[in-house]
Amino acid sequence: MTAFRWRAQARSGHARAGYLDTAHGTVATPTFMPVGTVGTVKAMTMDAVRSTGAGIVLGNTYHLMLRPGAERVRALGGLHRFMDWPGPILTDSGGFQVMSLGPLRRLDADGVTFRSHIDGSEHRLTPERSTDIQHALDATISMCFDECPALPAPAEAIARSMRMSMRWAERCRAAFVPRPGYAQYGIIQGGTEPELRAESVRALTDIGFEGYAIGGLAVGEGQELMFSTLDVTVGLIPDDAPRYLMGVGTPDDLLGAVERGVDMFDCVMPTRAGRTARAYTERGTLNMRNARHATDSRPISPHCDCPACSRHSRAYLHHLFRTNEILGPMLLTWHNLSYYQRLMRGIRAAIVDGTLPEHAAHLRAQWAMEDWSPDEMPFPDIPPVP
Amino acid sequence: MTAFRWRAQARSGHARAGYLDTAHGTVATPTFMPVGTVGTVKAMTMDAVRSTGAGIVLGNTYHLMLRPGAERVRALGGLHRFMDWPGPILTDSGGFQVMSLGPLRRLDADGVTFRSHIDGSEHRLTPERSTDIQHALDATISMCFDECPALPAPAEAIARSMRMSMRWAERCRAAFVPRPGYAQYGIIQGGTEPELRAESVRALTDIGFEGYAIGGLAVGEGQELMFSTLDVTVGLIPDDAPRYLMGVGTPDDLLGAVERGVDMFDCVMPTRAGRTARAYTERGTLNMRNARHATDSRPISPHCDCPACSRHSRAYLHHLFRTNEILGPMLLTWHNLSYYQRLMRGIRAAIVDGTLPEHAAHLRAQWAMEDWSPDEMPFPDIPPVP
Repeated sequence: MTAFRWRAQARSGHARAGYLDTAHGTVATPTFMPVGTVGTVKAMTMDAVRSTGAGIVLGNTYHLMLRPGAERVRALGGLHRFMDWPGPILTDSGGFQVMSLGPLRRLDADGVTFRSHIDGSEHRLTPERSTDIQHALDATISMCFDECPALPAPAEAIARSMRMSMRWAERCRAAFVPRPGYAQYGIIQGGTEPELRAESVRALTDIGFEGYAIGGLAVGEGQELMFSTLDVTVGLIPDDAPRYLMGVGTPDDLLGAVERGVDMFDCVMPTRAGRTARAYTERGTLNMRNARHATDSRPISPHCDCPACSRHSRAYLHHLFRTNEILGPMLLTWHNLSYYQRLMRGIRAAIVDGTLPEHAAHLRAQWAMEDWSPDEMPFPDIPPVP
Repeated sequence: MTAFRWRAQARSGHARAGYLDTAHGTVATPTFMPVGTVGTVKAMTMDAVRSTGAGIVLGNTYHLMLRPGAERVRALGGLHRFMDWPGPILTDSGGFQVMSLGPLRRLDADGVTFRSHIDGSEHRLTPERSTDIQHALDATISMCFDECPALPAPAEAIARSMRMSMRWAERCRAAFVPRPGYAQYGIIQGGTEPELRAESVRALTDIGFEGYAIGGLAVGEGQELMFSTLDVTVGLIPDDAPRYLMGVGTPDDLLGAVERGVDMFDCVMPTRAGRTARAYTERGTLNMRNARHATDSRPISPHCDCPACSRHSRAYLHHLFRTNEILGPMLLTWHNLSYYQRLMRGIRAAIVDGTLPEHAAHLRAQWAMEDWSPDEMPFPDIPPVP
């Protein structure tokens, strides 16, 4: 059986390229995990997800415990089989979603009682129950059940919440059933307070996990505070453990976080944007509903080999969103996930090649540019509209 | 350049297996054409459509003239390039859709003035304009612009309407620009009146078209009247011309019509059903929202190699529809189109093998059966839910 571990391949400053070995295969890091909340990466077949180069996907305890239920997924052979993804799956613990329920949830020292956002039925999650559910789902990587306070908040409230999450982390670890190639990650909390983050890292490393996540960021604090918090946190994590920044982010967020030593990411941005007509490109985003695309025979990006770009014009994508056709979200989600995976592959290759600073500067210069002008990028096959 | 023609390969009674040669490739007949109303087969990439075995798809003049507009499609390289379907495309003339607009349309001897169902803007279709639009779209097969009266209707009204459609057919033919490998089909009208159908066939064959469609059926008259109308109509069509039954139908409709000599079909049933959780199987249809599928680890059909059946359980499809996930319509449309294509391939092979009567009896016996019992059809990989 494969042991779960992260292996370094190359470094550039704090950035690392490596491999994550798991029971369900090896993933090159840094890596972006498409979000498959309820057992499907929205608007994508798993074949399509695979074709973008994704190596690991995310599932969600909160959503899957409500529908179809963890025990049902287990009975159907586990989440890998259920959703047709034989590769590694990381499951969120449900903590973040439950905390987001606001008045629908009641927190106590033992866990959280909440009402389903779907039918109002009452449910309870504790560190033990969340860990059990993730086991039932057969998650390759389980996450600790924690509390994630919204920022800004008083330091005292952040500290109290963090310490409760650390007590819960101990209970999660006790409930976790170790299996070769499987992992459980502790989640570092502490808001944007360096000393609280350090205390959280110490608490989690004392318990000992296969990997460490940075939680409680990208919750409204802004990129600068997020990066400065990473600056004081990531270096405290054991070097041989994988580091996962939860729920982040924009392409620029990913680049900055990789430069600070983060290995793993997840975010709904590329998939959600794909359903709302927003296309990621090397030169920023395009709103495909915009009328200027209506007669544009060029692909979204000249550098993309996804089906939206290799087979269709911007005009076609515009048409699909204008007519509310399902194929619009299908193609644009495919494109956006392709962009995110290509971005991560490029960053990873630059770490390996020792050219990360130049590559990062190039990426940022491109993001600051306008969309390609028609002169710059003729569509290879289709004549421009007269 | 390829000439447009239909070539017989084998016959069984009135049924024919053959090949349709076109400027955009050859299609084996009898064939079912997936409906791509507005330049997309709903919830499918064209790669997926191809993978089901479809050889020709349908587009719609009415929808495409409104969005994105025929001239825009022409400027973007034609409908084949726009929607990424290099194979043959048949376009409906818009007649059926415009007639369905009810109070939004005004019919005169020259054509129809109507208001768009989208924004109320006023448009006009005439035999000439419909033919021009289909040329602009670069349709492989253009259809005549006709009137299709709802049934039942007085014989006199049907006759008047049919005769106007025949005058329009002359104008359509005059407006059609012949090109090698392209075709225009005349549409036989006349309701369920044998003598009106015969008159219509005579009028159209006097004009002379590359193919002939039977229109004005499947509009509420019932299968028995539809079949008896085919019985008295199809045999009047020149034997060397392809015969297309418009807007039909259920698997049972297709089988009966092939037995009566029809070569081509289109219908929204498999795609629409795919979006509304209805799965076609060899033993009738299943409603995937039904709770009995929630724990069923078997595929929809043991005979289907589509991604829904080869990779997923009924339980997963049920879950996707219950959670309103886009992947539900995507997978089930794929499955239903796979079923329709497999059905047509099987019928065609039986004609070629000389076993159509036995094959048809087998199909009908299967349709009359209940869903497979769990004993009959174990899921090959997934253990049954305890």
